[in-house]
Amino acid sequence: MKKHNFSAGPSILPQEVLLKASEAVLNFNNDNLSLLEISHRSKPFVDVMEHARALVLELLNLEGKGYKVLFLQGGASTQFLMVALNLLEKRAGYLNTGSWSDKAIKEAKIYDDIYEVASSKNANYNYIPKGYDIPTDYDYFHCTSNNTIFGTQMKSFPKCSIPLVCDMSSDIFSRQLDFTKFDLIYAGAQKNLGPAGTTLVVVKEDILGKVSRKIPSMMDYKVQISKSSMFNTPPVFAVYVSMLTLQWLKDLGGIEAIEKVNDIKARLIYSEIDLNPLFKGYASKADRSLMNATFNLINDDLKETFDTMCREGGISGLNGHRSVGGYRASMYNALPLESVQVLVEIMSELETKA
Amino acid sequence: MKKHNFSAGPSILPQEVLLKASEAVLNFNNDNLSLLEISHRSKPFVDVMEHARALVLELLNLEGKGYKVLFLQGGASTQFLMVALNLLEKRAGYLNTGSWSDKAIKEAKIYDDIYEVASSKNANYNYIPKGYDIPTDYDYFHCTSNNTIFGTQMKSFPKCSIPLVCDMSSDIFSRQLDFTKFDLIYAGAQKNLGPAGTTLVVVKEDILGKVSRKIPSMMDYKVQISKSSMFNTPPVFAVYVSMLTLQWLKDLGGIEAIEKVNDIKARLIYSEIDLNPLFKGYASKADRSLMNATFNLINDDLKETFDTMCREGGISGLNGHRSVGGYRASMYNALPLESVQVLVEIMSELETKA
Repeated sequence: MKKHNFSAGPSILPQEVLLKASEAVLNFNNDNLSLLEISHRSKPFVDVMEHARALVLELLNLEGKGYKVLFLQGGASTQFLMVALNLLEKRAGYLNTGSWSDKAIKEAKIYDDIYEVASSKNANYNYIPKGYDIPTDYDYFHCTSNNTIFGTQMKSFPKCSIPLVCDMSSDIFSRQLDFTKFDLIYAGAQKNLGPAGTTLVVVKEDILGKVSRKIPSMMDYKVQISKSSMFNTPPVFAVYVSMLTLQWLKDLGGIEAIEKVNDIKARLIYSEIDLNPLFKGYASKADRSLMNATFNLINDDLKETFDTMCREGGISGLNGHRSVGGYRASMYNALPLESVQVLVEIMSELETKA
Repeated sequence: MKKHNFSAGPSILPQEVLLKASEAVLNFNNDNLSLLEISHRSKPFVDVMEHARALVLELLNLEGKGYKVLFLQGGASTQFLMVALNLLEKRAGYLNTGSWSDKAIKEAKIYDDIYEVASSKNANYNYIPKGYDIPTDYDYFHCTSNNTIFGTQMKSFPKCSIPLVCDMSSDIFSRQLDFTKFDLIYAGAQKNLGPAGTTLVVVKEDILGKVSRKIPSMMDYKVQISKSSMFNTPPVFAVYVSMLTLQWLKDLGGIEAIEKVNDIKARLIYSEIDLNPLFKGYASKADRSLMNATFNLINDDLKETFDTMCREGGISGLNGHRSVGGYRASMYNALPLESVQVLVEIMSELETKA
């Protein structure tokens, strides 16, 4: 039976991408060699890397606007320190909207002073702080656009006269934004982009080269840019699958098209959460994520029944994070509308049963 | 036609590993989910990670001897800085045997004082320095066991009373050594271990925690050990394929068995290089690598003919690195003896023709 994969990440990828990826492991580019055993400097792979980079700029509408695209390793967690190493000279401002923001702050503090402009930690991050000020003399402002664990999402971004850095790991390519507002965007691949193992960085080149510290080569955006993400061997397979996923999104009509589907999926699940008396949502309504819907059963006695119904319906990966409990339906780009329909039917059926 | 893949890395993997990896991209563990879309904290993947770790210790004969195994990201190039961040307090000694040693030295220098105990740079690294002294009051000694670019390999390792750190990226699991002599071994996966995208670290735990600097979490071996390589999302696919390759090696009879095959492959190619008047070897005979044989045509006019014969014979990836020129036959564990036989026949045929 086909699974309905609500996993929070690594998460569902388009079936056609998986088919092509599987084939490339055996025979890539009809060269009778596996993608895994060719040189990363061979033309077929250099083409993959360049195409992936071009697709990122095209989909984000950032072509010709001074941005560079990198495919690195180490996940967003490595970006927590790379951002600070490359941009932090004296002080930076961070918005604390959840575990990932909190970790980003902790890592950056190793290098210099960090100021939390606002935090929703006091309410276990169930909302996005608003109305804070960003000092204009800081090196940069950092925020997390979507909080997978708590199911909140920034609907708008503050006006910001200093470089704006955003961790978009869990909602990049899912909704239209004016991406020119951002100076540095990073994202672990394993949600909307590809498999675990590569990290996307989109950076406006003119914000770099302004700190006085000596940066290790692997951690230096300028070095990585000068080597086109090939300072050392890149994660070939993860970059290839990301390229396939970006191409899939483009063929579908790009972010504009997928956003419409994502909107419908989110409306469906949140409407069920709000109308079904057995469930309650976790995140503040105004800040609800289109990617991760977090909710709880009001009566935990129904847990076993609901879990069994989900399992029998082919629902996978619905468990909430341990710091929130309950359930989390992650509805990344590749999750079909049908999967949300199946989940909502099961929630509704539980109401009839109970 | 089946290719004979002499690529220096990413390089040939066993065919049965590729078949299983290709299948897992579509359906892993018979769960009707792709390996790329499951949680890294799901039991099936945690089992993969643990099995891979156990296989490393078993194959290196390091079980129960105080070593921990990590599967990280960022390649050996990231280890250049992690080694220094975690171990370098005042001064370390490095042996410079080629480009990779040189880069390791450069990155470590950012953190503290580095002393080159010896170097073969003056002879474009065509030999391995010997008879040097390692100061006993240094933090550690670092060397590179095999130099892919130049085709040299350390046949023995110096007596060392301080922690011995070795970059074994290109010859780990290829020959028997007393691995207990080493305190930290690291290796990018893309030669004898798996696809590009993960880096193996084997570290004796008692050498850690002795530096005074604050280490970023992602760069801290102790943090990575405490989280079993899952401080953040690991490169799931690369770890899985590495596990399959380690299992393949174990089933074959382990390092003892593969070393015999590697010996025969190396004897075959070097004997042809030495006996065939059209070719000359690059590396000093005493230091020749069993993994990468570097050689040149004495008369470059034969290049086009030889290249054509190679191509027609299905030989792939034989070009030498730009800093040495000529040819490089990389003969990693997964390269069949037959491939070397085919290459040697072509070299011999060229002699008949010329």
